[in-house]
Amino acid sequence: MHITKPSELESQKETLRIETFSDGVFCIAVTLLSIEIGVEIHGGLSNAGLKENLLEKWPICLAFLISFINVLLAWMGHHGLFKLLRKTDNSIMITNGLLLMLVALVPFPTKTLGLYLNSDALETATIFYTGYFVLVSLAFRLLWYAAARNKSLLADGITHKQIKQTTRNENIGLICNTVILAVAFINPWIALALSFGMWVYWIVFA
Amino acid sequence: MHITKPSELESQKETLRIETFSDGVFCIAVTLLSIEIGVEIHGGLSNAGLKENLLEKWPICLAFLISFINVLLAWMGHHGLFKLLRKTDNSIMITNGLLLMLVALVPFPTKTLGLYLNSDALETATIFYTGYFVLVSLAFRLLWYAAARNKSLLADGITHKQIKQTTRNENIGLICNTVILAVAFINPWIALALSFGMWVYWIVFA
Amino acid sequence: MHITKPSELESQKETLRIETFSDGVFCIAVTLLSIEIGVEIHGGLSNAGLKENLLEKWPICLAFLISFINVLLAWMGHHGLFKLLRKTDNSIMITNGLLLMLVALVPFPTKTLGLYLNSDALETATIFYTGYFVLVSLAFRLLWYAAARNKSLLADGITHKQIKQTTRNENIGLICNTVILAVAFINPWIALALSFGMWVYWIVFA
Amino acid sequence: MHITKPSELESQKETLRIETFSDGVFCIAVTLLSIEIGVEIHGGLSNAGLKENLLEKWPICLAFLISFINVLLAWMGHHGLFKLLRKTDNSIMITNGLLLMLVALVPFPTKTLGLYLNSDALETATIFYTGYFVLVSLAFRLLWYAAARNKSLLADGITHKQIKQTTRNENIGLICNTVILAVAFINPWIALALSFGMWVYWIVFA
Repeated sequence: MHITKPSELESQKETLRIETFSDGVFCIAVTLLSIEIGVEIHGGLSNAGLKENLLEKWPICLAFLISFINVLLAWMGHHGLFKLLRKTDNSIMITNGLLLMLVALVPFPTKTLGLYLNSDALETATIFYTGYFVLVSLAFRLLWYAAARNKSLLADGITHKQIKQTTRNENIGLICNTVILAVAFINPWIALALSFGMWVYWIVFA
Repeated sequence: MHITKPSELESQKETLRIETFSDGVFCIAVTLLSIEIGVEIHGGLSNAGLKENLLEKWPICLAFLISFINVLLAWMGHHGLFKLLRKTDNSIMITNGLLLMLVALVPFPTKTLGLYLNSDALETATIFYTGYFVLVSLAFRLLWYAAARNKSLLADGITHKQIKQTTRNENIGLICNTVILAVAFINPWIALALSFGMWVYWIVFA
Repeated sequence: MHITKPSELESQKETLRIETFSDGVFCIAVTLLSIEIGVEIHGGLSNAGLKENLLEKWPICLAFLISFINVLLAWMGHHGLFKLLRKTDNSIMITNGLLLMLVALVPFPTKTLGLYLNSDALETATIFYTGYFVLVSLAFRLLWYAAARNKSLLADGITHKQIKQTTRNENIGLICNTVILAVAFINPWIALALSFGMWVYWIVFA
Repeated sequence: MHITKPSELESQKETLRIETFSDGVFCIAVTLLSIEIGVEIHGGLSNAGLKENLLEKWPICLAFLISFINVLLAWMGHHGLFKLLRKTDNSIMITNGLLLMLVALVPFPTKTLGLYLNSDALETATIFYTGYFVLVSLAFRLLWYAAARNKSLLADGITHKQIKQTTRNENIGLICNTVILAVAFINPWIALALSFGMWVYWIVFA
């Protein structure tokens, strides 16, 4: 273990601070999703009426589930990426800001998917939703580009192999999401199923 | 006190980070509950009209109270469980993610209970609400199962007795909530009273 | 400086954790207030129309201002109280939970005050609002009662004088809020002015 | 490195606590912006209808983008300012509280801009929005005034030059925002473009 200089410590604290702020955005975005879900008030509704009303909520619940998993995985990916960083510069601040902005806006495509999953506009809703997550992958790719192009930003002991591995992972994520978007133009349900399959693979093998 | 290895420290920091994120979800879910409660605007309402309007808000306030206590107790239970952990693995990440998803969605059953507590659909609303908390108990039970099946994940100095005790507590929670759900099919008010009695017991004796 | 025992450290960490969670509730409650404020969409509105629309928002903005200050002062009071604590017990958990529940629900009386400040129902709205903060003071008083009745919960070096001082402060807060509630029954505007005067005093002299 | 006295440590912890709370308000305000954005439910909407509906959301998305950048830059400015502080006093608490109140209410002007960006009321909406950020700059200026007038509040090793530099930066921010407000009275689009140009300058050169 080598001696850490004061200025080194300072920039580590800065990086931690940015990560904590980012964690907050992920955490709030994921929890805010829920306030969109609710049954409407109908005066004098019967038990059978409420049951039907609740059962009709499955599309928005499914959209919530999909986005919850997406944001949670994005959070884990974000953390994995920041673990490789020793300090941050302007380009990391900008690309990270772009990523957070997209994460904060996830409730928008989620609501859209939930409202139109069971309608004639399913195709447009799915294209919008899967396209949105292509943008999220792209922001991740840009963040990693900003980090990897400058070796002095990376933590000590990061090997060339680790950098290559992360680059490959970010590329795969971007490609997978783009393929899913392309499939959404052909068949929305297959696109959503592929998206789900990708997580299972991710969770079980990574 | 024994020497902690660097990798040990690293996994402790990881566990803390996951717990902090989970705390954030609990904290936001509990506070978000409140934005559903409000009187509607009625042009030129009189003092008597507003008073009546406010008094009619008791069902949603009661639902808020019940859920606030439920989430606060769940938070304490979650913390108690994480104190036993030294590190996390994939199965803990997944079961914890499942639990957080359910916690984040608590405003949905709470609103439903609040809107229909004083209506003909009380039975369905109570079944939905109590059934939801059976799912929460189940997620807790799964999280503990994921933790307890692998001794290397547990903190040093955890005795066999402590593990058994926690298993018993999680089982009791799951059974109690299932019984309350069963009662809700017979009489919703008794189910809600039982739920309340359970907390009083929990708070006073545990 | 004396040696801190491991169990001592553990209970200090627990106290910090509860305080962090409480901070989160204060922070979210204060920020959530804002989402209630907004102009409604009116198709094809003119510049003059929007200006008028915005100017009509003063009651809700005033209510937001009053509640923001109230919650911020409550946060500072909460922190001052927790600084005196070394560890927590069940009764502190319960009274703190009660306080947090009231803080989380502050948007409800705030909205009510904001919607009816400029209406015939002003009296009822002000009584509800000022009465709500009597409850908040009461929860603070209970929390401090739970803390002060057991000397082993207090931090080392807390003098008898400090305890007495805090008791007096909590009592004064409770009495002031009760007086303001009583005045609200006679004249709502004087009650709100008194409330404002109390903060100025608090901020300048305390 | 000199020895830090216990009371010194205590006031550093206090300052950190206030900064953490402030971070929370920034973080929540920025994420809350998103819940205002959504398409409305229209029974039986077609793919073409949803597409049109989504494309019509550009004004609110643009307003979200502008506010997200504004709040993120304000957060960075807030952090830069707090790094110069060693401890806080009453006047810092008050001016910081004022700043947080304005930050928490950012969703209000954002919504207004988003709803009327593409309407006849654009001028009023832009004046309200740019005027609001003049207030934010003013609060920053006041916070820095409260900090700089008392040397004992500043961190050790802060040079006279650093103080002057920060004063100049805060003044420039306030002047720029005032100029943008003045331009908004003449041409709203130029005002928004200037606002955007200011960030680019800020991000690239500062």
